[in-house]
Amino acid sequence: MNKLLVFQTDFGLDDGAIGAMEGVAFCVDIDLNIRHLTHNIPPYNIFDASYRLNQAISYWPEGTVFVSVVDPGVGSDRRSVVARTKTNQYIVTPDNGTLTHIDKFVGITEVREIEERTNRLKNSEHSYTFHGRDVYAYTGARLASETISFEEVGPVVDLDEIVRLELYGCHRIENGVMGQVDILDVRFGSLWTSIPYEEFINCGFSFGDDVRVEIFHNDVKVYSNMINYGKSFADVEINEPLIYMNSSNHMAVAINQGSFARAYSIGVGTGWTITMTKI
Amino acid sequence: MNKLLVFQTDFGLDDGAIGAMEGVAFCVDIDLNIRHLTHNIPPYNIFDASYRLNQAISYWPEGTVFVSVVDPGVGSDRRSVVARTKTNQYIVTPDNGTLTHIDKFVGITEVREIEERTNRLKNSEHSYTFHGRDVYAYTGARLASETISFEEVGPVVDLDEIVRLELYGCHRIENGVMGQVDILDVRFGSLWTSIPYEEFINCGFSFGDDVRVEIFHNDVKVYSNMINYGKSFADVEINEPLIYMNSSNHMAVAINQGSFARAYSIGVGTGWTITMTKI
Amino acid sequence: MNKLLVFQTDFGLDDGAIGAMEGVAFCVDIDLNIRHLTHNIPPYNIFDASYRLNQAISYWPEGTVFVSVVDPGVGSDRRSVVARTKTNQYIVTPDNGTLTHIDKFVGITEVREIEERTNRLKNSEHSYTFHGRDVYAYTGARLASETISFEEVGPVVDLDEIVRLELYGCHRIENGVMGQVDILDVRFGSLWTSIPYEEFINCGFSFGDDVRVEIFHNDVKVYSNMINYGKSFADVEINEPLIYMNSSNHMAVAINQGSFARAYSIGVGTGWTITMTKI
Repeated sequence: MNKLLVFQTDFGLDDGAIGAMEGVAFCVDIDLNIRHLTHNIPPYNIFDASYRLNQAISYWPEGTVFVSVVDPGVGSDRRSVVARTKTNQYIVTPDNGTLTHIDKFVGITEVREIEERTNRLKNSEHSYTFHGRDVYAYTGARLASETISFEEVGPVVDLDEIVRLELYGCHRIENGVMGQVDILDVRFGSLWTSIPYEEFINCGFSFGDDVRVEIFHNDVKVYSNMINYGKSFADVEINEPLIYMNSSNHMAVAINQGSFARAYSIGVGTGWTITMTKI
Repeated sequence: MNKLLVFQTDFGLDDGAIGAMEGVAFCVDIDLNIRHLTHNIPPYNIFDASYRLNQAISYWPEGTVFVSVVDPGVGSDRRSVVARTKTNQYIVTPDNGTLTHIDKFVGITEVREIEERTNRLKNSEHSYTFHGRDVYAYTGARLASETISFEEVGPVVDLDEIVRLELYGCHRIENGVMGQVDILDVRFGSLWTSIPYEEFINCGFSFGDDVRVEIFHNDVKVYSNMINYGKSFADVEINEPLIYMNSSNHMAVAINQGSFARAYSIGVGTGWTITMTKI
Repeated sequence: MNKLLVFQTDFGLDDGAIGAMEGVAFCVDIDLNIRHLTHNIPPYNIFDASYRLNQAISYWPEGTVFVSVVDPGVGSDRRSVVARTKTNQYIVTPDNGTLTHIDKFVGITEVREIEERTNRLKNSEHSYTFHGRDVYAYTGARLASETISFEEVGPVVDLDEIVRLELYGCHRIENGVMGQVDILDVRFGSLWTSIPYEEFINCGFSFGDDVRVEIFHNDVKVYSNMINYGKSFADVEINEPLIYMNSSNHMAVAINQGSFARAYSIGVGTGWTITMTKI
């Protein structure tokens, strides 16, 4: 193992929660290299947790242990698990759908249920609301430091049994493709869709093409216009829209130096669909 | 010492302030392990600084040096001190009340005043507004790296003389307890009260009980309703309220997947009191 | 080199972007010490990126490698460069004006253009929008880890050719000085001006003096009042304004425990000028 322990949560950075998780981990092993993806996953949003994990982990070394805690079911009987990926990385998380994208795009080789009798911060038995600290950070730290092996996490879970969210994916339509607005490039307001680059290209689009983009909310059309397909923002004027391939190899829609999401009040997730077609 | 140096401030993360503090510390010792609790303490809020410190430090290893800078009196004659706790950790801070919760809930064995002639970043004598960088980060780094000993910080301060905020605590009332809404679980909008778990239990409450919760702002009642006492959010429906023991062993009030504070416009601190009583 | 790799961007902390940059760097060298200035530079704001870099780097050790990515021209033919400062630190950045303040206040000894054929994350050739990850984090990591030397970055760029923003500076006027409101102390709402401490003092001001402050937006006066010149906030009452020397040795205007910028709707940058004069 490389001692890398990487946290992601929806806890925000306004209080001592992340600090407590780090402290617990350093008490396990002072030499851990603790890092952070983001702690601003929208509260309770399991889809985003799953998406963001997948967005990041391929850039990290083999052996890295990720701890992802977006856990609306804390205190219920939802399982706590550790998954090992095909890329030989580990993800410690509640089994609530957080593994969906990793399972689909990276691949999971084995999942083990965290046996809490042995893998839980001492004297935390009566704490029912902060498993991020008491179970996940603690177990992640013990795994990353090789205090326990993957096998010592607990019993194997049947891969078919882990919770998976339904993903919209994309499908061909007449003269183009249809997908979902999955998530935002939050800071810049760009729409990241579920349409893979290859599917888009298979429709016959090339750089410089004008593409008809239509966006629907629960089947009501909320946007329709022609947008140019470019390599990057620099291909269009400031405040002009463009279609481009995002940094995760899916199609995205942006306004150069503006916010497409805010300009047209576009939301994300279930019910928000998008089509890209030839004229 | 374990080389752990942990910062907490109200400086936010929008400019280079924290970066400058880290740089100063690394110039003292490149091998320091610098970490962060939060830098989003509400500006000038000494109570919150004191509360958040206490919330986190028990999870960190012995020997850790904390630097907490919420310092509305920077440039005045308020003292700068280092406190050693009963758990053998150190806190570098202005002596303005930041040590209150640690003093009460952890215990302080010795406090020393920072002798600024020797413990101040070179050439910073004419800088009057950023002691976080020039005095506290610098002294914390020198202590965590064992460049100086605790004794070399400066002269001992009488423990009776350190500044303490008045804490509301809690008291028994007819059929229940009364406390203060101390602080929020900011991200989720839950109210964290000053009522310890034991005091609540001593009133005879058990899991599943309905509890009458009343909240007052300067003695005006602003909320009154029955709320169920549960182990965790999963015990109630989405958007239902519950009473639970928070991760710091005090009673809290939340709305499952909602924000209690926002739903009922509840504030925190002086003037915001709460009662939990049997019907 | 000291293995310190320090990131600054306008990417925010809400998604996995910074996490991906860190992962790329750790894949280059697991022993890098990766740190962060801020990731909340206002989107596309090159002036702020330049200002914040300069605000922080003098506090960091020799040999530190900084990566600053505020890059509205990503995908255009703007150059990617590494600058070596007179203080023997390195800055990896798009050549778009980000080096302006460092060039003026610290000094740059040599600039090299990043040769992307050799200095680019493998298999990222078709990614046109995230050079922060594919080029800058990757090259910064290779430089900080001594995988490549400064010379191996690419060919030398003529110092006269690097992009510089025009800085307002300050000039003497009758009975005082005139400068620009450069930037805010964001968290506290204080105005940081382009008027150096020495220029202010050369006008004959001393601690305790009342100074006439006038602020203009595109030559329209938006504020005019007498403000006391003090050492620090503690010199005035709560909610009283003061003039003081900020932590970067320039003159600033604040309201003690309030926000001057919000109180008087003051903006920053081009068009926002300020005068400080004797009565």
